[in-house]
This record gives sequence, C-alpha cells and structure tokens, in this order.
Amino acid sequence: MTAGSRTATWREPGRDPGERAAALIAEMTPAEKLAQLSGIWVGAAEAGGVAPHQHDETADPVDLEALLPLGIGQLTRPFGTAPVDPRAGAASVAATQRAITAANRFAIPAVVHEEVLTGLAAWRATVYPAPLCWGASFDPALVRRMGERIGATMRALGVHQGLAPVVDVARDLRWGRVEETIGEEPLLVGTLGAAYVRGVQSAGVVATLKHFVGYSAGRGGRNMAPVAIGPRELADVLLPPFEMALRAGARSVMPAYNDLDGVPATGDPVLLTGLLRERLGFTGTTVSDYFAVAFLHKLHAVTGDRAAAAALALRAGVDVELPTVDCYGPPLLAAVESGAVDEADIDRALLRVLRQKIELGLLDPDWEPEAPGPFDLDPPESREIARLLAERAITLLANDGTLPLRPDARVGLVGPRAADPTAVMGCYSFPVHVGAQHPGVPVGIEVPTLLDALRAALPVDVAHAEGCPVLGGDDAGIAEAVAVTRDTDVCVLALGDRAGLFGRGTSGEGCDVADLRLPGRQEELLEAVLATGTPVVLVLLSGRPYDLSRQADRLAAIVCGFYPGEEGATALAGVLTGRLDPAGRLPVAFPGAGTVQPGGPGAPLAGPSEVTSVDPTPLFPFGYGLSYAPASWSDAEASSAEWATDGALDLTVALTNPHDRATSDVVQVYLRRTVAEVVQPVQRLVAYARVDLAAGERRAVRFTLAADLTSYTGRDGQRVVTPGGAQVLVGASAADARTVIEVELVGPRRVVGVERVLEAEVSVG
Amino acid sequence: MTAGSRTATWREPGRDPGERAAALIAEMTPAEKLAQLSGIWVGAAEAGGVAPHQHDETADPVDLEALLPLGIGQLTRPFGTAPVDPRAGAASVAATQRAITAANRFAIPAVVHEEVLTGLAAWRATVYPAPLCWGASFDPALVRRMGERIGATMRALGVHQGLAPVVDVARDLRWGRVEETIGEEPLLVGTLGAAYVRGVQSAGVVATLKHFVGYSAGRGGRNMAPVAIGPRELADVLLPPFEMALRAGARSVMPAYNDLDGVPATGDPVLLTGLLRERLGFTGTTVSDYFAVAFLHKLHAVTGDRAAAAALALRAGVDVELPTVDCYGPPLLAAVESGAVDEADIDRALLRVLRQKIELGLLDPDWEPEAPGPFDLDPPESREIARLLAERAITLLANDGTLPLRPDARVGLVGPRAADPTAVMGCYSFPVHVGAQHPGVPVGIEVPTLLDALRAALPVDVAHAEGCPVLGGDDAGIAEAVAVTRDTDVCVLALGDRAGLFGRGTSGEGCDVADLRLPGRQEELLEAVLATGTPVVLVLLSGRPYDLSRQADRLAAIVCGFYPGEEGATALAGVLTGRLDPAGRLPVAFPGAGTVQPGGPGAPLAGPSEVTSVDPTPLFPFGYGLSYAPASWSDAEASSAEWATDGALDLTVALTNPHDRATSDVVQVYLRRTVAEVVQPVQRLVAYARVDLAAGERRAVRFTLAADLTSYTGRDGQRVVTPGGAQVLVGASAADARTVIEVELVGPRRVVGVERVLEAEVSVG
Repeated sequence: MTAGSRTATWREPGRDPGERAAALIAEMTPAEKLAQLSGIWVGAAEAGGVAPHQHDETADPVDLEALLPLGIGQLTRPFGTAPVDPRAGAASVAATQRAITAANRFAIPAVVHEEVLTGLAAWRATVYPAPLCWGASFDPALVRRMGERIGATMRALGVHQGLAPVVDVARDLRWGRVEETIGEEPLLVGTLGAAYVRGVQSAGVVATLKHFVGYSAGRGGRNMAPVAIGPRELADVLLPPFEMALRAGARSVMPAYNDLDGVPATGDPVLLTGLLRERLGFTGTTVSDYFAVAFLHKLHAVTGDRAAAAALALRAGVDVELPTVDCYGPPLLAAVESGAVDEADIDRALLRVLRQKIELGLLDPDWEPEAPGPFDLDPPESREIARLLAERAITLLANDGTLPLRPDARVGLVGPRAADPTAVMGCYSFPVHVGAQHPGVPVGIEVPTLLDALRAALPVDVAHAEGCPVLGGDDAGIAEAVAVTRDTDVCVLALGDRAGLFGRGTSGEGCDVADLRLPGRQEELLEAVLATGTPVVLVLLSGRPYDLSRQADRLAAIVCGFYPGEEGATALAGVLTGRLDPAGRLPVAFPGAGTVQPGGPGAPLAGPSEVTSVDPTPLFPFGYGLSYAPASWSDAEASSAEWATDGALDLTVALTNPHDRATSDVVQVYLRRTVAEVVQPVQRLVAYARVDLAAGERRAVRFTLAADLTSYTGRDGQRVVTPGGAQVLVGASAADARTVIEVELVGPRRVVGVERVLEAEVSVG
Repeated sequence: MTAGSRTATWREPGRDPGERAAALIAEMTPAEKLAQLSGIWVGAAEAGGVAPHQHDETADPVDLEALLPLGIGQLTRPFGTAPVDPRAGAASVAATQRAITAANRFAIPAVVHEEVLTGLAAWRATVYPAPLCWGASFDPALVRRMGERIGATMRALGVHQGLAPVVDVARDLRWGRVEETIGEEPLLVGTLGAAYVRGVQSAGVVATLKHFVGYSAGRGGRNMAPVAIGPRELADVLLPPFEMALRAGARSVMPAYNDLDGVPATGDPVLLTGLLRERLGFTGTTVSDYFAVAFLHKLHAVTGDRAAAAALALRAGVDVELPTVDCYGPPLLAAVESGAVDEADIDRALLRVLRQKIELGLLDPDWEPEAPGPFDLDPPESREIARLLAERAITLLANDGTLPLRPDARVGLVGPRAADPTAVMGCYSFPVHVGAQHPGVPVGIEVPTLLDALRAALPVDVAHAEGCPVLGGDDAGIAEAVAVTRDTDVCVLALGDRAGLFGRGTSGEGCDVADLRLPGRQEELLEAVLATGTPVVLVLLSGRPYDLSRQADRLAAIVCGFYPGEEGATALAGVLTGRLDPAGRLPVAFPGAGTVQPGGPGAPLAGPSEVTSVDPTPLFPFGYGLSYAPASWSDAEASSAEWATDGALDLTVALTNPHDRATSDVVQVYLRRTVAEVVQPVQRLVAYARVDLAAGERRAVRFTLAADLTSYTGRDGQRVVTPGGAQVLVGASAADARTVIEVELVGPRRVVGVERVLEAEVSVG
C-alpha cells in the first residue's frame, strides 16, 4: 500500500487540487483510473423502479467485493433506493467507505450522490415545495435558504453530491417533468436555480445542473423524445439558466438524455466540451444521467456497442457514468487496452473527478468516513423553511369573494387530493419516488393533508368525500361528492395529480400526457359539483397547469398549490381561511383551450393572430396571482428615454400597502423590442423583485438594467446588443403592465460575450 | 418607343435568354426595373378575403392606369379573385396585357399567375383531388397527367405561372394546411410533387414550389408560427422534396412565411441564395408569398419600415413581391435612389424575372396577348383524370365485411358531408376559396354529392339526414339522424371538414385546430348512430386525419376520401358498392389518442417507449389501405447481403392477384439503420411501386436502390453514406413488413453531394 500512503504528495491539503490530482493519476493503472469514472448502485436490482430501464441495466446484484480493489468512483443513492433509517444508513455508508478506502491502493473514497430536488430523497427527510413552487415564490433568498438546509442535511449523512437543480425551461406542458422545472421564463429559472446552487454548495457539497440541454423540449412533450431546436433558441432560451447557475458556482453538470437535431447530448463534444468547457469555462465534473451512456447504443443507436458508446461519451466530455458501472467498465477498459480509446481521454475526465474529490476533502489525511449527523432529517429549522416557501408559493388565480372562507360557513372538502399526504409532494420526493413502492413503510415525516389542515383551521367540522381517485373511480363516488356539496355553503374541491415515475403517476418522470384535461374523471367530478349551484373553490395540487378554460368562469375561486411540500396543506388552509395572504405568482401560464405550450418568450406569430384560428392566449398568464390586500403601484419611471447599448437604464417604482394587514407583491419588468435583427419575443422577463409590505408601508423598488440584458443571438450568431426601439413594461404579470416606458437603445451594435451581465441589480428600499 | 422596338436585340428569339434579358436591363431606368419586380392585384380590395391581412394591405383599389407607363411585373389572380366567365376573363386579361404592353417603353407584358393546387382556381374549371389524395394514389404517372391538364388549362387562358405544388412535408396534423401537403414521407411528397411539376410545365408554363422552407413545422401546428428545427432535420426531412421537384425542372420557388430559429425565410440569404441558388443551382424566379415582404416589418419586426423590408427581401433573394406592389414600389425606389440599396441587387432579381419572361416567349416578336382557349375548363379529358385519381385515392381503413354494401340493403346516409357538393373540395379549389364568398354564384361545374352518387349507384332509395352541420347543430338534428339510422340496415356516415380560409372552415389556410377530435358535434353524432346498433360505415371527407381511436373498433367500416375532387363522390359510391376496388394507401398516418403528429421519419425515442406514458403509435399507419381483392406477395429478395456504400442493391418481389377481378397494391420499401453517426429514423420510405394486377395476373417488381438513398446528414454536417448494419423492409404499409432483409453497408464512409441519387429505379414487369 505504498501508493496509498497517507503521506503521498497528493494528500497534502495545502497543494493545488489540480496538481494533487495529476500526481495521483500518474500512479494509477488504466483499470484503477476507470474505476473512478463510474458509480455503483447497491440494491438497485432488488429495488422498485426508480430509473428508466433500470431493471434491464441492473439485472445482476452488484458484486461490490470484486470491484473494491480497483476503487469506486461514486456510490449511487444509498438513501434513495429503499427506505432506510438515516442513522443506520449513514453507518452503512461509512462502513462501505471504509471498505472502499481499505481495498484500493490509494485509499480513495467514493463520492456519494443522491437525488435532492425537493429535499434530500431520504426516508424521514424534509419534503420541500417542488420547483414550480420555487418559481411561484419569486424569492431567490428563500430558495437559497432552502438550499442551505438541503446541503446541511446532505453533509450530515455523508452525501457529497446532489442531482439537482433542474434548470430546464418548461417548453411543453404535456411533459411529465414540467413539475421539476422552475417555470417558463429563463430569468426566473436561472435566478432561482442559481440561488438553490448557492444554498446547497454553501454546505461544501456539490450541486448538479441538469439536464444539459434541451430536455424540456422533446417533440410532443414526450420524455426523452428528439428535440428540434435551432442554435438561436438554444442560446437565448434554454442556455441562460445554465449560465446563471454556473456563475453561481455549480460544480457538476448532467448531460441530457435527448438528442438535439440527431446528436444525443451525452455524446456531443460540441455541447459538452466546446460550449460547456471551452466557452462557458466550466471546470467541474459531468455525470451521465442514469444509463445514458448505454442509451447511446441501446436507444439512440449511434454506436454499435457499449465500448463505442463509452468512447463516444468519454470523448464528448462525460466524466462519470451513472448510476452504475457498465459501459465505462470492461467495455471501455478493453478499448483502452486495445488502443481504440486514448488513455489521455481517460485522464482528462479523471483529472476533473479527482480534483473534485480533493476539493471535497476526500483525499485529505484527516478525512473520516463517518457522517457527522445530526440524523433528525426534518428538524424544526428545515420545516420552517418548507413552511415559509409554501406560504410564498400558494397562488390565488380567481376569487369572486368566496375567499377567505367565512368562519361560519359550512365547508365541504371534496376531491382526490384532499386526504392523501403525498398529494403535496413531487415525483422526486422520497415518499413518492421510493416510498410508494414500499406501501408498508410509513411516510416518515409529519405531513398534514388538506383535510387535516382545514379541519384544524376552521371552527366547525369539514364534510369530506373523495368523489373519485386521481384516475378511475365510479359514479357512486361522484354522487357522494355531490351529496356532500349540496349540504354545504362552500365546496373546496382538491383536484390534481398523483406524482409518480414511469406510468405510476399522472405527472412526473415518464408520466407525460396527450392533452391538458384533468386526469381521469376529475373534470367530470368538477362539473358535477359545479352543477349543484354551491360555490366551488378549486384547489389544484398538480405537477403542471391544466386546462381550466371550460370551467374557470363558473368557479368561485381557484387556488394553485402545485406541490407545496410537507407544510403545504397548512399553508393552503391558511390562504383559504384568510390567515395568510396569497403571495404566489405563476411561474408557468395556465393554458387556454388552444395550446399545450406554456407561455415564455414567444415570437409575435407564436401569439394570437388573424392568420390562425387557434388562440394560444393563456387563461392565466405568467407572473399572475391575486392578493387579499393588493398593493397600489406608482407609475414606474426610467432614468432616461435613451438606453446606451453599452450603458444601463434605471427604473423606479413604488408600492404602497393601503391595508391594515401585511401583503406582498412581485414587480416584474419585461422587455419588448420594436425592431431587431431577428425575430424577438413579444416580451420577455428581464427583472423582478419580491416586495413585502407591512400594513400601511410604502417601498421604492429600483432596477438597474444593463443593456446586456437586451442582448440576443443576432443574424451572425453572435450575441449582440442592437440599437433601436424598445418598450420596458413594468407590471404585475405578463399581461398586466402597469407602466409602459418607451425607450430607444442608442449607440453602436455591440457584441457581448459569455461574461455579459445576466441579471439586473435590484434594490427594494 | 424606340426602346420598345420590335426589332431590338432582346427581342431576337434565337439568342440566349440571359443575354437578351441583360440587354434589356441595360436600357431600363430604376423605376422601370422595379415595376417588373411586383404584381398588381386588380379587384382585391373589393373581393372577399382570400389572403392573410389582404384588406390591411390592399385598402385602396389599384390605380392601374397610373402604373402602366413603367410596366407591370405580374398580374395577380385575374381568374381567382372573383367568379368570372372564362372567355370574358381571358378577354379582359388580353385587354389588360395590351394596355400594359402599349404603355411601357419596352412593350413587356405581365406574367399572369394563379393558384392551381387542385386545378386552376378559376370558375368552371375542373376541381381535382386535393394533394393528400395524390399521396394516397402513390401514382406519379397519374399525378403528372393531372399536371398536364392543369398546365393546358392555364395556357388556354393566358396564365403563365401557377402557385403550386406545395411540397411541405406534413409535420403537425393540427395545421390547417395539412390538406395541401402530399403527405408525411419526404419521398412520397417529392416524387409526386416532381410529377406535378413535370406535368404542369409540359404546357410551357411555370410551376412554383412552396413554401421554402419549414412552413409545415410551425410551433403547435399554428399557421405561420415560428419553426424550431435543426439543420439536420431540415436537410433530411424538409428539403428532399424541394430537391426532387427542382430536379424535375421547377422554374419558380416561393419562400415561406415563417421564421426558422428567428430568421424569416423571406429575408434569409442563407436559404434563398446560399442554399437555393448556390448549392442547389436554381436559376428560376422566387416570388414572395402574399404580403410576405411587408410581413418582415409588420409581423416579424425584423426591419423598421417597408423600405428596409424590401431591401432585406431583395438582398436575401426574393425576386418578385406578390400579390401587389407595396414594399418593392415607392419604398424600394426611394432606397435605390438614396443609395441605401444597390442597383445591382435589383438587376440580379430583374435578370431572373426577364429571363423567365423571355423563356415564356413573352418578349418574342410574335407574342400575342389573346388567350388561345379552349374556354371549356372542365372538358371530359380533365374530368376523366379527376375520376381516375379519385378512384386511386379512396382508402379503405377498416371493414368487418359490411362493405361492399349488399345490393338489397336498406342504406341510410347521414352526416354533414353527405349532401354538400363542396365537401369533396379543398381550401384552394375555386368553389371554396372564392366561390364560398359569392353564395349567389353556382359552383359552375357538375359535382355530385355523396348522396347523389349513392342514390345513382344503389337500386333502392337512400334515406338521408344531415344530423348536424360540420360545426354547430342541435339535438333535434342528431335525433333525426338516429331515427333514420334505426330504420336502415347500414348507416353510411359522412363526416369531416368544411374547407375554408382564415376561420371560415375547419381545415384550410388559417384553420388550425387545438386537438384532433372531429369538428363540432360530429363525434357526438357518431356516438349517437353507433348506439343504435345499426352497422356504421364512416366516410371521412376531411383535410386531415382525425382521432378515431375511441370509435374505430365499433365501426363496421372506415373509408377515407380526404378531398377527392369533383368526381370523388362517384368514386366513393363505387367503393361503397363494390364497383371499384379501394386502391388508396394513407399518405399520412391516422393518429392514436396520444399524439397530434403524423408519422413520417421518426427517431426511436419519437416512438413508443417505456420512458413515456404517451404512446404515439398510429391507429392506421402510413401506407396502409385495404382491398376487396388483396394481392398475395412473394418473399422479397435482395441481390446481395452486402450493399456497397458506392453501389446499389437490387430488390425483387412478385405480386399475384388470385381473384377474378382486377386489383392494385403498393409495394413499399423502408430502410432502417441499426447504427449510424447520428440518430436515424426507425424507418423511412426509400422506394415504392404502384402495381396494377388484372384478374389472375402475376407481376414482378424490381427496385434498384442506390446507396445514396441511405445517405443522411452526418456528424460533420455533410451528407454521407455510412457503412454498417441495416434492414430493408418490403411491405404493404409502414407497419406491415412482408419481408425484412438484413443487409450490411460495406465500404468507406462516402460523402455525397447535391447530385446524389434521390429516387430508386423501379420497374414493374
């Protein structure tokens, strides 16, 4: 074990991590090198399905003992494969790490990775609101605090890398993973994704941006389907959130499953090396999506076998194969030994991997395998953040005055999402992702249902009937719901999705839909309770907006919760009863009858037009949400009617709360160009500010908009700021401009680089 | 009038047209030059709407007299703007041509253009089957004969240019103009589009390929919406039909309205000059789609005014502004005079325009303005072609034995498409496009309805009820249809579209849809007649496939007619009664419940997959159609199991008709790659042969497949033939491979150019 000596130069904490990694590489055999470039997924073969093609690809239990002598790159999901007690799981991981370090010549531990999208996907860990709720909060500071808690929980268990955030921009509402996105506007996705990264990585662990790139734009909204997108739309819509999150310091990136115009991202050197490394300057690791290297061969058929798939991915720039050793194992080793693959390509990936392990302290002399704890994964300080974020995210979309509920009202709560604790959780939460396959295992955390929360919040009992399940059901169930509704003054109807994986849900990974009607018989239930004449308050707990265009004008109120997490039902009840002011603003538009696409930056001819009979105007636009105590707005003012192409524009607007209770609003700034080199969106979000206002308070909001924020990919493919007319719209939603300011961009056409300003400066006085 | 002398060198028929055009240009002023680069649309302001934004853009009646002295480039739609007697219309055009030639210094006549998609769009002219029927015929020879008749009719009236064919590949069934496409497979679209071009141009007139390029792929299936498509999909799916039709000699091309990745096609020099002229070698004219130059400013906002729009289009390569002088008039003249636009750009366009006028003989000394006639625009020889093509196109999709109808059956004919003569006509037929806005004017040609035709074909009377209109209707109408159905042995239910423009129809230009349910209450009518228990034969007369997935297995039979033209109802009756064997094969797949996309070349992950819950498997696949007398097939055989990358593969298959009546089948050859550089379609059509078989006949079919047919756009952007595994599937539809032949492409990777082989050699022995 000389090589693994604890006094080797690459163990010296003071030295440059790159130098240490290089020194280590110089001592390694090809087989040892490759062992660092893949994961091991213990228990996957026995586990329920939590990844696509999982059981095709992991038919045999892993023989860990046989692999140990060469080393192990990553340990895959020790907490997120089956329910395991946190303390026992951490002890098991520590034991495995001890075995790993003991067995390989260099005593290199594994990186432990987990899913962490709505919190660490471990039994008994806090389930936070899902990303659409982050979007609805428009509150990067709070999302960062959530990230800090998630990072701390990872660190407590010895988890080094989390496979989040998803910074894909929602592009088709049929896609099952819309629930994992932050929304439809690149700026919102990027700022909140960056906030999450900053939070998680503040604990000294690694966040992983995914899915690089295009995954949200699969044809027909189908998971992993081919993506048709031009380089300009890619650069101007899909890439900016990655740029923002990379600037926040994200240390890992996961290539997307999909192909772009025929080239799978996992095998694309133009994306993974040319763009990500050389242009954007990324120095961290790339980790494949689960089985994505094998899919180059198996699903995309761009290689003839697994060795070629490994070579293609490696050369393109995929450093680590996840979840488990496959193509990067014996097939790639044989290719290296035969000379078909250059060892330098291995070393390039390995340098990044080992540098990251060094940066994580895994190769420091004082590294210890034991997780530090604490092992209470849902402590009050985490639950508090989950509560605050849920309260920020609940969005009131319509209200005829029925809300808040009168204290003396007889309230009926109806619908399939009323009494199921998992109704508030997204597909990547542990109880849904893993727990659903272990029905005998309790949820493990306290999760009030909406029924629990509403009963706790109201002085009189709440009548209840399910009506129908999310899918299926019968006439008798609907009749029962109608009967309950008839006997009440107000019907609260909780509809939406059952999150789940690969056909087990109505939303979530692999759970795409053909249209945006409510799943199963829920629209029928909705019509049945509406027909009673009792006012109906619709509460939507779902992973995507649904088409409510046929019912919206007959509903007394609509409250959108998406998946608000473990404290979500309490927050919903607070909004319904008026304890809380609804503060959320839509991160994705609710569709009208004419479309399956969200809003987001859209060209003039993507909008309503006399040249087509299909009107894609949303029912509820991006950024929209009502308040019980709406702020009043001053006219916004700009510092100048001219905006130098190398300058900045200052905007100010003041919000006043004339009410005797606190409120909150979101000031949104949209840019519209009257002329540009290429077709521009009718408008796009360029800045926003969450403004909290105490009773009677007035606050001034100031934005400094660098002209870089107007940049786009010009005719010649360069990112440019161009002179010409523009409008700056300051308002309360994408369709509610309170002030429209005409400005002229003046000065020369200016090319901007990757270092351009990505976000406005915002101050709330 | 010295310049216009009939003895000028540019009037000498023997000289090279390009030299003659150049000589003429040398004598012209900028204003005279520009006058040749646009059309004049007389009567448009008073006419009903036949083009998008027509009345915004043509508010004032054209002052022809004022424009004459400078010359007139084109006369727009003298027969297709309002109903006009053919002889009188031709005389009017001749008088206008005389005035034009008398007034301009060079005595240059105008090019007269018309819509010609389903026949010349003139009152009393033959209405042929719409393009989806051409596709269903799989019969290029017959489509060519139709083109010859259309060309002859154009020539008879003094029309020089026809704005057809549409060679867009259907990419989204929601799009209203799917009915104008030939289908979803590039090879089918290209071969039939080329046949149409050869036919039309054999009369010495000009065909116009449209819409270059991408128009069929607008986001959400919405007309003119932005197109997101990568360069590889563009080259491999959308461009090949243009390449085939250009190789057939098409002399004009119309740029598309849409933008591609932000760049409007009408203002894109990369497309219109780099690709079309320099790479594909096109030397004819480009003509803008109606108002498309103004739309660069007005809808796309890529220029600040009309002068800049004109300059952008002109420099990009748009030679002629249609339909009427606007941006290419005073705005462009001012730009030339100020030096903002280079006169050389004008001359480049003008050279092509004048060369084409010279090639058309318009500048020859013996040119006469009078149209030669004949003025019977629907003579027996045209009607015969319309009949033959309709008989080839009617497609039987399902049949439980109810068809052919028993002679003694009591038949009821129900539905909104049973008794309307325009039910068999597409949006670009004169009676729909123009006639619909002149309700007092008779259709002008004999068009039996399905009710007429069925009554003529059956010995006993046919009961009839409309049930409901295409849109709207009431319960009483549906009840009446149910009553009629109850009293009959078989219900023939004629459902489908009302073709129309911009909101006046359920299919056609501007008539896009949000989903693929039958329009209006037709699905309700279908369910109501199904509920009677009487066997229901569905006849679909529509511009697109609809989602029949919920009813297909309860229908006794399904017959798809699309829009079969003036003889279509007679052909349908012939199929229903068994007089004719149904010969059509689907040019677009009928969707299942899970998609709004047609089939066509699709990647593995665009198909059914365990990674998504949405199954896009069609209900009826591309190429599918039943026969009353199905041929039997031998196993197909290949000349070799190896296919040299610079060689060819010979395939043979024999079809036998074991019946005592004639039949017809279509042999289809699909290619599947087991490995390629980039993601390839699961399969794509590479050859086909229509095979007619007399009773008892056996015929051998031979295909010679050049390896070029396997080419695709490789990783490096070059079109390549690559070695590796492949399967050749020989069968009767995209989902009915009768023989699967394993072959290996052998030899070096080979780059092929634009001169590559585009079509297989086919011989039917």
